[in-house]
Formats: sequence, structure tokens, C-alpha cells
Amino acid sequence: MSALRFEVLARSGTCEARVGRVTTLHGSFDTPAFMPVGTAGSVKGLLPEQVAQTGSQIILANTYHLMLRPGAQLVAQMGGLHGWMRWDRPILTDSGGYQVFSLAQIRRLHDEGVEFKSHIDGATIGLTPEAAIQVQNQLGADIIMPLDDCPPAAAEGLGGGAAGSEPRIEETVVSEAVYPRLQQACERTVRWLGRCVRAHERRRDQALFGIVQGGIDLRLRSWCVQRVIEYDLPGYAIGGVAVGEGFDQVRSVVEHTAPLLPADRPRYLMGVGYERDLLVAVRAGVDMFDCVLPTRNGRNALAFTSGGPIRLRNARYADDARVIEPGCDCVACGSVGGRAGFSRGYLRHLFMAGEMLGPVLVSAHNIRHFQRYMLDIRRAIIENDWSLIERNWPVVRSWLEGSGASVRRRC
Amino acid sequence: MSALRFEVLARSGTCEARVGRVTTLHGSFDTPAFMPVGTAGSVKGLLPEQVAQTGSQIILANTYHLMLRPGAQLVAQMGGLHGWMRWDRPILTDSGGYQVFSLAQIRRLHDEGVEFKSHIDGATIGLTPEAAIQVQNQLGADIIMPLDDCPPAAAEGLGGGAAGSEPRIEETVVSEAVYPRLQQACERTVRWLGRCVRAHERRRDQALFGIVQGGIDLRLRSWCVQRVIEYDLPGYAIGGVAVGEGFDQVRSVVEHTAPLLPADRPRYLMGVGYERDLLVAVRAGVDMFDCVLPTRNGRNALAFTSGGPIRLRNARYADDARVIEPGCDCVACGSVGGRAGFSRGYLRHLFMAGEMLGPVLVSAHNIRHFQRYMLDIRRAIIENDWSLIERNWPVVRSWLEGSGASVRRRC
Repeated sequence: MSALRFEVLARSGTCEARVGRVTTLHGSFDTPAFMPVGTAGSVKGLLPEQVAQTGSQIILANTYHLMLRPGAQLVAQMGGLHGWMRWDRPILTDSGGYQVFSLAQIRRLHDEGVEFKSHIDGATIGLTPEAAIQVQNQLGADIIMPLDDCPPAAAEGLGGGAAGSEPRIEETVVSEAVYPRLQQACERTVRWLGRCVRAHERRRDQALFGIVQGGIDLRLRSWCVQRVIEYDLPGYAIGGVAVGEGFDQVRSVVEHTAPLLPADRPRYLMGVGYERDLLVAVRAGVDMFDCVLPTRNGRNALAFTSGGPIRLRNARYADDARVIEPGCDCVACGSVGGRAGFSRGYLRHLFMAGEMLGPVLVSAHNIRHFQRYMLDIRRAIIENDWSLIERNWPVVRSWLEGSGASVRRRC
Repeated sequence: MSALRFEVLARSGTCEARVGRVTTLHGSFDTPAFMPVGTAGSVKGLLPEQVAQTGSQIILANTYHLMLRPGAQLVAQMGGLHGWMRWDRPILTDSGGYQVFSLAQIRRLHDEGVEFKSHIDGATIGLTPEAAIQVQNQLGADIIMPLDDCPPAAAEGLGGGAAGSEPRIEETVVSEAVYPRLQQACERTVRWLGRCVRAHERRRDQALFGIVQGGIDLRLRSWCVQRVIEYDLPGYAIGGVAVGEGFDQVRSVVEHTAPLLPADRPRYLMGVGYERDLLVAVRAGVDMFDCVLPTRNGRNALAFTSGGPIRLRNARYADDARVIEPGCDCVACGSVGGRAGFSRGYLRHLFMAGEMLGPVLVSAHNIRHFQRYMLDIRRAIIENDWSLIERNWPVVRSWLEGSGASVRRRC
């Protein structure tokens, strides 16, 4: 078999959403899929079996972090990512590009590649398209990504709005001042993709996706889609979103770009996002997501619920005997081996006392929250009934009502 | 039934060691028993079911920490310790005294009780024998401890040797300069015990133990035993050891004191210790132990093995594909749901990268290490064959050989 197979199992009757299954040499995952992030080879605080218990069928690991520490060669020598971290299901690695542009101090960016200072020890490291693929060949994930030129929107004024001043939907053509940089990033991303395709040495067991850049400029997005799909790759990603721009801009880009990508390949929206973002993207035809929100927020005592997030450090929860979300079947809320779920009061105490178990439990809950949400989204698509989402997920409903757009009416 | 029942199931033919079972209203535990420490109502990093999976049948929680945060009344309101932390098996709470003397700044110590500054917010708190019992009645552990006057040996010159200069065994009568303070602590501990017995309001479901003090002075230990056992309590503890004195002193105190305590009650050696300490104490007739070593050291990347501890941060482990201890059945070393154990190389990476999963896994391993050790000790007693310990636990063997005392020969 090939490195990746994608089957579409059901399509929404009213929008671009579809339910599918992606099969890799390490097993399958259902789409639309949410991938929790295991940055340095560990979904923070959770054992692999606990990650699996959240319903996660695929996880993402960050090439940037792993190449700096412990190094891809060591991981390869220790059995590759799957064996090393003891996760025998599908894994996706990013190219490292996003972190180079967001975490590291860039020393030089040119057509050959990018030189940056390691955020760990300040060492100067070079990353080329070929190196990004070689490193990912060593790590051995099932799905790998090409190096792209991914300028942060907000930091460089590429359409990123200041906090609280989201640009309106219409503003989807960038100003003349920033357009050249955006166009350069697009063209470079396409050139680099060609080099990545040629450098890829494990085509039989690793699927290399293409990435579409273009910022919030829809003409550039269209242009980039055309160039990228010429490579006839097993999947395509929409990159360069959630890098500082507002929700309406993300929405505009996704609703424009996703339908341009081949319908018989999985579409992956990188680094997104909140529940409403996922819903909008699924309805535009996106199949895969990753986001650090459940784990990063979980470590900070922010727990997702169907009615919106709650801050567990708040004093009001000290004597709250309820679990985070009554009815949730996660390890924090659900009954396990005769024990009832943990109360919000106890969880608050864990955070106030600096106990590790707090981050562990709320991370597990938050990931399960997103997986239960994806389950309902897949069901809504199969049953062609989006009212399910409106009923079960008030956090989305209230936004939909606020924006005047009902899920049911739109789909 | 009463709050606690103790059955002796087997006795060593050659020493004071015995195998028994303690039964509380929350179930039984086998003795000799090792209790991991859940200081603030959580064995750090581990879910209750993970603690149970280490073979731990009873845990210890610290009254001092819980009374300061979140407060015993809140815990009582939330269902007591068992319900609050979701551990439905036996729990023991200490009195808070030990932490007052070791963690807090003492403002005033007198016959009525002790006033100290909270190490959390600096507030001045008073703790009397009656208050210590009231707090523990609120927490609701199965076994509770009386407030004792527990002066730190090293800090106050009560026999504590400087590092590397362990006093010899013969030095078990303290100097005239410190004797008065030690005698005062003993007498006060006995007076306070009487007040604790009178204050105890849940005799039907909570077993109050007595504590023997006396430092390294064996005459004082004997005197204290006589006074304490007059109260005819369901169990007795040896306190005031492992507070800064050397191994030989601890050994001398334990071998002197344990046999003086009633043979039909469980004997508990507080806050001890390493494998050799446990072995020496078991052979002197001790039945219960608690110690923070497995979790505290586990968080610092120190993993216990049958051959001695290893420091996982050491660079030599970076590419070590072995688990911490081949043959160990803990969640870190053993096979779980089809996944093999985690390599030392991966564990080292987790610590180097600051990943929570490192402390979680090594804490679980270390607790399991001590529980497997207790299993072997119980088996050695039942089979009256201590060579089992010499074979399976080189960490003890090498010490025994070094000290010229073979387990087999001695017992």
C-alpha cells in the first residue's frame, strides 16, 4: 500500500463538510480529526495510553524542537518517533518552519533556506528544505510537511489586526506595502516544495503534504493552490493562518482556499483553533486540525466546557463539588474503576498548591473536550443535521447567534 | 468493627520481622507496608488509579499542608480526604507537628501548643494537641497521629552528625547539654498524647496511634514507650528519627525501641527511608513506613533500581534503549496495552526538555520499586528465607557485605 490512503465516507448535503478516514502504516484516523500537540515528543503530562483514551488517533510533534533536542539522528537510532515515545499510532511532524519564524531569532532568510539562533542554547542553525525533509525522514512520522516561508502576520503587518480591532471580512487584499513580502513568501514556499519533494527519501511510508501560503490575500492563495497541487501530493495544508490575524480573516481565507484543494485528498488547516474556528473550517471542507490550546490552556487551569471555558483558579470553585463538565467521560470528569470524577474544588486546589496532577487532569479533559466535539461534528455531517451541534455546544451556539449565522440555516 | 484491626499472619523464625494485615473501614493493607506520600492531597503527578497500580494500598497525607491550604473544614465539606482526592483506600495523616518543626518558623513553643508562621503566606497559626486532632477528625483519614514535640536532631545538635561523619553506634546517649531539651520533648509528647486521646471524637472510624520520642537516647526511648503504651492505642509509631542523625543511630534506636512496643499492634517508623533502613527496621519488628524519597527523587530524575539509584540526566543514558529496570512491571518499565516500556534515553530527554511526563513516570517507577521490595520482604518473612533479598536486591546486598552483616546470617 502507499504511505497514505484517504476515503471519504460521507458528505454533508448542505456544505463542503465531509467525514473520512485516513489510513497510514501506523493505523487509521477518522476525519475531521483533531490532533493534540506533543511538541518535544510528549503530549505534556500524559502517557501515550492516556492520550489514546482521549480519543486522539493521531498526534503532532514539532520537528523544530526535536531537531534541537535530542536531535533527529538520536531519535532515528532509538527507533524513530513512534518507538522512542511509545506511540504506535499515526504521527504528523511539521517542518520546523513555523517555529523558526515564531520562536527563534532569524539570522538570515534567503532562497537557500533560513539561518536562526536556537532558542535553547543560542547556537546558529541552518534549515533548508532538504534538511527539513531529511530530519523528518529520520524522525519517521507518517505525515511530514515541507519547509515553508511563513511570515507572522501581526509581527510584520501582513494584515494582522491589533487586539480588539478585527479587520472586516472585506479586507482580504493586503496593502501594497506588505504585498511584495507575501508574494515572495508564496513563491519561495512553492520553490521550496519542489526541493522537498525531490529530497524525500521515504515515500513508501511517509506522506509528504503540500502547504498553501498567501496570507490573507485571496488572489495569492489561489495562485499558490494552483502551483502546489501540480505536485499531486497525498494531502494539502493551509498554512500561514492563525499567525496573528483575526477570526473573520481566517474564515475568509479558509472558505476561499479549502474548496480549491482536490476533494480526494485530506485538507489540513495548520494550528487552528477554537471550537468556532474548527466548525467554520469543517464546513469549508477541512479534514485535519492541530492546536496547542487544550494542553497549553489546561496547564494554566483553563478548562473547556460545552458552554465555554472556565478558569479553575477562580475562588468560586473552591467548594464546587461538580466535575468540570457533567457527562464528560474524560479521566478527570468520568468514573474510573469505581472512583467518581474529580471536583472543580479539588482541581482548583491542585493548581493553587502547584500540584502536577492539575495540569495533567485538565489537559486530558481539554483534549477529550475537543475529541467529543469532533465526534459530534462527524455525526452532524453523517446525519446531515447540524442542530446537534447547536444543542450540545452552547459555546458555538452563542457565537453563531451573535454573528447572526445559524449553523442550521447556513448549512 | 473497630476503626482498625491488625492480624499477624506470619513471623520470621530468626528475627522480629512479621507479615500482617491491617484492616480499616476503607479496606486492608499488607504489612510490612510502604506508604507513598500525598502531601497536599495528591501523590505528586499520579492519578489515584496509578498510585494503586504501583501496589500501594495506603497513602499518607500531611495535615500541616492541608490545614493551611485548602483548610480542613473545606475538605470535610467536600466529603473528607477520601472523597475529595478520590482515593477510597486507607489513608494516614500525620499530626502536622513534624512540618511545623521542619518547614515553619516557630514563633512560640510551650506546653499549650506551638505557634508558627505559615510557610505559604506567613500568617501566624496556633496548633495545639486538640486542634491537631480536630483537624484530622475533619480530614477523616483512617489512621491519625497525635501532635508531638519533635525537635530536629541536626538543627539543634541533638546527636545529628555532620554529613560524612556518621557517629558510631555507641554514641546513643546524648550529651548533657542537649539532654534536657530531649527529655522535655519526650515528656511534652506524652502529656500531649493524653490531650489528643481525650480530644479524639471519631474513635469508631479513625485509629489514633501513639508516638514514641526520645531522640537517640535509648533510656528516654524506653521511658517514652512505657508512658505511651499505657494509653492502649491501636498502633504505635517511632518518631523523631530520620531528622538528621546517621544510619547507625537510626538503626540503634529502631532495634532498641520496636521490640518494646506491643507485638499485637502495628508499629510504624515515621519518615524512613532507603532500602537498607527498611530492611533493618522490618527485622526489628516494624510494620509500616512512609517516605517521600520515591516521589521527591523521581521528580529530580533519580530512579531507583535493585542495583542502586541511577541519575537519568546523565549524558550516558541519552542513547540507552533499556528501561530503567528490566523486568520491572511499573508503568514506565513494563508493557502496557501493547506498548513497550520507556527507554532511559527517552526519559532522560523528558527531563532535559522539562517535560512533566518525566517526573510522572519516574515517580511511578520509584514507588513501584519500593512496593516490589516490600513484596519480596514479605515473601522472605513467610518463606523464612532472606537469601531472596540478597539475590534480588544488590543495592542492599552490597551494603550488607560492606558492613560485614549478611541478611541470611543475621536473621
